[in-house]
Amino acid sequence: MANHDALPLVVLTEQFASLPGIGMKSAARLAYHVMSMDAADVEAFAQALLNAKKTVHYCECCENLTDQALCPICDDPSRDRSTVCVVETPKDISAFERTGEYKGVYHVLHGLISPMKGVMPDDLRIRSLLRRVQEGGIREVIMATNPTVEGDATAAYISQLIKPLGVSVTRLAFGLPVGGMLEYADEVTLYKALENRNEM
Amino acid sequence: MANHDALPLVVLTEQFASLPGIGMKSAARLAYHVMSMDAADVEAFAQALLNAKKTVHYCECCENLTDQALCPICDDPSRDRSTVCVVETPKDISAFERTGEYKGVYHVLHGLISPMKGVMPDDLRIRSLLRRVQEGGIREVIMATNPTVEGDATAAYISQLIKPLGVSVTRLAFGLPVGGMLEYADEVTLYKALENRNEM
Repeated sequence: MANHDALPLVVLTEQFASLPGIGMKSAARLAYHVMSMDAADVEAFAQALLNAKKTVHYCECCENLTDQALCPICDDPSRDRSTVCVVETPKDISAFERTGEYKGVYHVLHGLISPMKGVMPDDLRIRSLLRRVQEGGIREVIMATNPTVEGDATAAYISQLIKPLGVSVTRLAFGLPVGGMLEYADEVTLYKALENRNEM
Repeated sequence: MANHDALPLVVLTEQFASLPGIGMKSAARLAYHVMSMDAADVEAFAQALLNAKKTVHYCECCENLTDQALCPICDDPSRDRSTVCVVETPKDISAFERTGEYKGVYHVLHGLISPMKGVMPDDLRIRSLLRRVQEGGIREVIMATNPTVEGDATAAYISQLIKPLGVSVTRLAFGLPVGGMLEYADEVTLYKALENRNEM
């Protein structure tokens, strides 16, 4: 947007452009779209923003996002509380829930240890995870952080803290994606797939 | 988002997903991003939405979006008021202004005639354009709608209304895009480029 545009439109465009994955051109398109929306719909959008930010907070137990004291998963009596899947973000929970196979509970770290980015263990929700483990009843902690340098390092760090408490710590299996083609697999994935090969 | 997500987050995701060009996955990503924003920043975003919708309206003269009575272009005494460039949307004005070459003023139709979509001439800002022409002082009206069936039809319709008033009506030139390659040009563009060829 240039200086011939109305200032409130420029401000709105900049707001959209500050969101991840939205460039200036898309932001301008979205701002113009808002202009064409009904006033009531714009009001509903603004209200949804404020409402989500105000009422959604971290689950007392697993640090997932929720507008209740406990998130629906921690609050579900049918879930297996002895297995905790540790993930980086609430988004990762959605990915596991989509499989429909995992019946345990979760713990969200809200980040990965990264000295380069200035993220230290104390910046993550690791203490609440240790407290859960110390309270007992947990048999297995599955480290489900991404297979990146930071994800692996965070998994290793947390694993060292939990193992002495006598709880089994596992890591997601890495290998070929189902339906993937050998020739398109990168070297590290292929190496992992070879290393973790199973008896048929 | 699934039913394990907090309801206010689901509502916010649906709001983002209702914007053009944003699918459910991007919408979820944006909603999660809002959760990680400072409360003050979310408030500023919501305020920008409400403020833009409330204060931005159509320019009294050219129907461009503005938060003043007149848009900055109509309000600029250095612009040439005898030439009016007729465009479909306020976005198109930005495109012309980026060229830095056009010194005239604009008129925004806010749509194109499209019986298929139920958009009739009366739904567009054609009457205010005719009023401007009738008030006098305009020498040329440039029809700068897109080179589509609807853009051409709208240009032809408006041209028929304005020509009897003794004002020159022109249409943007269509031809090869500068820097474009002949072999990639579509047939219609190439035909237009041939038809409108100029003496060297």
